[in-house]
Amino acid sequence: MSRAMMSIILRLEMEKENVSFGEIATIVSNVGGDIVAIDVIKEGKHKTIRDISINVNDETKQERIIQSIKQLPGVVIKHISDRTFLVHLGGKIHVSSKVEIDNREEMSRVYTPEVARVCEAIDEDPNLAYQFTIKRNTVAVISDGTAVLGLGTIRPEAAMPVMEGKAMLFKQFANVDAFPICINPCKPEETIRIVKALSPTFGGINLEDIGSPQCFEIEERLKQELDIPVFHDDQHGTAIVALAGLLNALHIVNKDIASCKIIVCGIGAAGMAITNMLLTAGATNIIGVDMEGALTRDLSYDRPGWNEFAGKTNPQKETGALHDVIKDADVFIGVSAPGILKNENIQSMANDPIVFALANPHPEITPDEARPYAKVMATGRSDYPNQVNNVLCFPGIFRGALDCRAREINEEMKLAAAKAIASTISEDEVNEDYIIPSVFNEDVVQSIRNAVIKAAIETGVARRNPDQ
Amino acid sequence: MSRAMMSIILRLEMEKENVSFGEIATIVSNVGGDIVAIDVIKEGKHKTIRDISINVNDETKQERIIQSIKQLPGVVIKHISDRTFLVHLGGKIHVSSKVEIDNREEMSRVYTPEVARVCEAIDEDPNLAYQFTIKRNTVAVISDGTAVLGLGTIRPEAAMPVMEGKAMLFKQFANVDAFPICINPCKPEETIRIVKALSPTFGGINLEDIGSPQCFEIEERLKQELDIPVFHDDQHGTAIVALAGLLNALHIVNKDIASCKIIVCGIGAAGMAITNMLLTAGATNIIGVDMEGALTRDLSYDRPGWNEFAGKTNPQKETGALHDVIKDADVFIGVSAPGILKNENIQSMANDPIVFALANPHPEITPDEARPYAKVMATGRSDYPNQVNNVLCFPGIFRGALDCRAREINEEMKLAAAKAIASTISEDEVNEDYIIPSVFNEDVVQSIRNAVIKAAIETGVARRNPDQ
Repeated sequence: MSRAMMSIILRLEMEKENVSFGEIATIVSNVGGDIVAIDVIKEGKHKTIRDISINVNDETKQERIIQSIKQLPGVVIKHISDRTFLVHLGGKIHVSSKVEIDNREEMSRVYTPEVARVCEAIDEDPNLAYQFTIKRNTVAVISDGTAVLGLGTIRPEAAMPVMEGKAMLFKQFANVDAFPICINPCKPEETIRIVKALSPTFGGINLEDIGSPQCFEIEERLKQELDIPVFHDDQHGTAIVALAGLLNALHIVNKDIASCKIIVCGIGAAGMAITNMLLTAGATNIIGVDMEGALTRDLSYDRPGWNEFAGKTNPQKETGALHDVIKDADVFIGVSAPGILKNENIQSMANDPIVFALANPHPEITPDEARPYAKVMATGRSDYPNQVNNVLCFPGIFRGALDCRAREINEEMKLAAAKAIASTISEDEVNEDYIIPSVFNEDVVQSIRNAVIKAAIETGVARRNPDQ
Repeated sequence: MSRAMMSIILRLEMEKENVSFGEIATIVSNVGGDIVAIDVIKEGKHKTIRDISINVNDETKQERIIQSIKQLPGVVIKHISDRTFLVHLGGKIHVSSKVEIDNREEMSRVYTPEVARVCEAIDEDPNLAYQFTIKRNTVAVISDGTAVLGLGTIRPEAAMPVMEGKAMLFKQFANVDAFPICINPCKPEETIRIVKALSPTFGGINLEDIGSPQCFEIEERLKQELDIPVFHDDQHGTAIVALAGLLNALHIVNKDIASCKIIVCGIGAAGMAITNMLLTAGATNIIGVDMEGALTRDLSYDRPGWNEFAGKTNPQKETGALHDVIKDADVFIGVSAPGILKNENIQSMANDPIVFALANPHPEITPDEARPYAKVMATGRSDYPNQVNNVLCFPGIFRGALDCRAREINEEMKLAAAKAIASTISEDEVNEDYIIPSVFNEDVVQSIRNAVIKAAIETGVARRNPDQ
């Protein structure tokens, strides 16, 4: 199922007289594998033991390599390691102390009895929790495992590797301490109570991979009822990065978002969040399209959020299927299903069409197919230009929110984050294949942080100005 | 309220012509403070700025030093730092990644898309969570802030410094990753639901500073309903270390626990846990005493757990106050209130009386007062010999439980832990002033770990044998 390169390491015991390394290499390359490293583990007179690191791009190839080597006389596979599983051994994060406790004086300072004075001070003034506890720099990454990657609902234990990976990215890109917590799935009301109960510990809550529609209620209620930022990254992270890309794309085609006709295809959690973000950014003519065709305020819908959605979109009350309403559109943003956008649809759009085909891993149309017709193209994939990847957003947005001790992450802060991401690409640099910076661009986090803090202060949700 | 040494650092700007350092030193020593370091921050022609580190043993002295220095002409206090508060700045723990993510290949291995294969594997076999997630080595330290140190109920935010300190001790002594979570206090049923919901993430739950009686129901139910160890350290940690000390004390006086008359004074959470531990260890004649006098099965009690307690203790149905039932007792264990044990009570005990006066910070009787009469004496304090300190227990007991992936921490494992602690002091070494090892004794954790794993395997609650 994975489209990325997989790495395996085979430990082979080879009888020197009966088999040559060349035979192994031939098997691997015939199947399409790539030998990237050879380590001699033990060299004997008759036998040699070697670790062969092989990159392959799918599991069937891996299996074919293993089976072929097994059939080769004079070779025994002693061990098979998978680099992805290896890096997960024992988990990917740990909890460390900032200071060592080597003697009783140090222990009495960080623990009883001296710690009691710090506890008392915080009990008197709870704002001091930001000063003297991990609340200052710590975010909970919370999932119930109901919408993990493309896997759907999996056990909470099974969702942990994603949440741990997220915690690593928080640390690596923004020095945020993030702790992953996977909870048993339950009714939204119960999840809300659990997260609220935990909240005193944390400076922010990153909700992750929680299914729709329960994610709406959970996030909305937690935002209302907590005084720390609550951010469902799957919705807003994607929306912010998509808007960032769109701002640069519109710059290239010299169009104003307010006068664009924008199709958002796939009105689930992501589609709604993108639409809200575009409206905040000044879009006035968004048409939502789903299986039922264009959403319009003339109809009444059962799906959660659709009536509200229809009420604030499609001002011309256009009707019909995607191929109808996409005519003369300036922008297509898909968060729907593979292959549903056709070349003739793009040809029916306005001049210089912008196509964001974000269905992942298989987009609504591939860049190769769309290239002759779309002026600017973005996907969710890392193997094409212009990847809409929310790793670009969440580290910086929480860095900013924590640094100013924000009470929430509001629309203004999200808009500021999107503009900050867009502006990390200068006017000189921006072009059809470079509307979104790389996740490894070192300016992005700082730029988002500063913009988010400014917006938080301006909207009155910051508890402090860190730069004063 | 703190009896430990406090350290403050005063940054002083001194006019050289108007004030000498000797004057400062005199003020400090007159009040009973101790200058432990002087750092020159800036040296000018007329002015000098210095950081003066001062140890004092209570807050009033600190205040008197500050006030006296303020009145001195030619000195300005630029800044006052408190070393305890300084070490708490920004919290005391952080979350780190085990590997760096420096490029896209690494990112795709620890996060999407490759992480999906690990998620799928765990979803198929949840036991793999111990292999590929932090569950293997991670314990939640959970408190609701209702019984923090001697402070009673404080805000959950205010309890965090204690829980963070606990996490540091877990790491330092046993390399356990412990994450502190302070939750809003709520009914036991709700706390149980919250902890159960979080449990997929963790390999064990350390309950901490949860008030009585709700701690009983919370722990009992969680033990029944979860398949990972749940351990309320305030109850069982103290009980295990007290038993460890008692075993060595009984060795010194050459008595057998089964034939001892043991008074347990103060029948709250700790008293009950100690009693259960002693019964597991073979005690047959324990008499519980509280304000109402000796608990006996002839009476009926309203306080939670008391009827059950009375049913398994006091086989002779002795009645009366502490001074009555303590006659001929071999052992007194107090977890009650300062000063309630008198010398004449000890004198009325059997030969070679053993007195554990564990009320903290002020024991039932001080070692100085008890010394002429008690043969062996222990307290909860670090400034006397024989400190009953649960830091001796929890790191090793969870190290063992995690290493064998125990489903629970049962009575046999606790008894094994107590014996392991006791046995770290050899027969040659053990004496009246050395029945309990130091918390910095490096053998303790390993010794407990091994004993706990053995007991877990023997009682069938281990999921694996780590030493095979």
